[in-house]
Amino acid sequence: MSERATSEQAGRGPVRVAVLASGRGTNFGAIVAAAEAGRLGAEVAVLVVDRPAAGAIDIARAHGIVAVVVEAREHPTREAYDKALIALLVERGADLVCLAGFMRVLGPAFVEHFRGRLLNIHPALSPAFPGLHAQRQALAHGVKVAGATVHFVDEGVDTGPIVLQAAVPVAEDDTEDALAARILREEHRIYPEAIALFAARRLRIDGRRVRILPAP
Amino acid sequence: MSERATSEQAGRGPVRVAVLASGRGTNFGAIVAAAEAGRLGAEVAVLVVDRPAAGAIDIARAHGIVAVVVEAREHPTREAYDKALIALLVERGADLVCLAGFMRVLGPAFVEHFRGRLLNIHPALSPAFPGLHAQRQALAHGVKVAGATVHFVDEGVDTGPIVLQAAVPVAEDDTEDALAARILREEHRIYPEAIALFAARRLRIDGRRVRILPAP
Repeated sequence: MSERATSEQAGRGPVRVAVLASGRGTNFGAIVAAAEAGRLGAEVAVLVVDRPAAGAIDIARAHGIVAVVVEAREHPTREAYDKALIALLVERGADLVCLAGFMRVLGPAFVEHFRGRLLNIHPALSPAFPGLHAQRQALAHGVKVAGATVHFVDEGVDTGPIVLQAAVPVAEDDTEDALAARILREEHRIYPEAIALFAARRLRIDGRRVRILPAP
Repeated sequence: MSERATSEQAGRGPVRVAVLASGRGTNFGAIVAAAEAGRLGAEVAVLVVDRPAAGAIDIARAHGIVAVVVEAREHPTREAYDKALIALLVERGADLVCLAGFMRVLGPAFVEHFRGRLLNIHPALSPAFPGLHAQRQALAHGVKVAGATVHFVDEGVDTGPIVLQAAVPVAEDDTEDALAARILREEHRIYPEAIALFAARRLRIDGRRVRILPAP
């Protein structure tokens, strides 16, 4: 497969990041905090949620970030939903789209539109334990090392090229919640780091591998 | 599934460990070194190799450990080979059998005979990348964290209950050899540690999970 730069914007100001979330938005919060601390090298341009009750909205409000609710019931089909989402993200000038606990599966047209600039975080050391309840899967399998993965999104479930991973030890008698909390701390570290690498144009997708280029 | 103690020997002196290897025997060497340093709490009773050229034999000789060659060509079938191996290990009083780069697949009768006291080490973070060339698989998949796994052997390939795992970072531009060497250092640490836990009767298989009991 050919090499391809993942960031195509040039000379138009800081990279604009859109975050898509459905829940509390702790990863969104970590991304916002990194931006405010000057560690992101990018601007958080918009939060999109699929339900008005998503706690992430409160974080957006508190930090003066535009939050948009796009509900499924407003759109007759998944394709129509994805199309509306694409239009919104284009309108907001999103250079990079970050899924952060967004509970809807995005269709192939969405994935194709943002290919190479669509990130997701998964609470497992991919390729282990794709899909829902990864921490529960890990405990049931009896692994002693779990972790988190930031990856570019492809058509599969949690299968795309891996940007960063962090290992997390499983403790004796861990509960799903305790393990999830320990993994979440690493998510909050590596997701902003991956975005910063993207914004610095230091990520290059080479087949299944993501090369991290040296700092200029 | 029911809980089951993994070490059934009681009051008959130190746990006797048999190591099965096919190659250089670096894990065998690490196990011997741990035994000699008093960190194993067990005695390395015998080395079994399936080819006379295995470098592990030299390590056994240098440390005064009995080495036995059991070649495939001496036995008409895999079942006959496994049967001879079981007889040899029983004769040598093996309480625990450790596969350390043993390149033969052992059949169900062997696995059943030594169930709960048969360990293997695999150069990946199971369940990722079972089978041959795990390090190559990991690099091709583009993971950023690789590792090593000590597990009890079941009927599958590298699928049994996990005793210990160690995470190993993948470096930018890693080669298969460089990654394998980095993983091997962790193998040399966790394999003796797993054996010591077994010898101290601190491992308990509970379904797919291996509980590590507190030190007495």
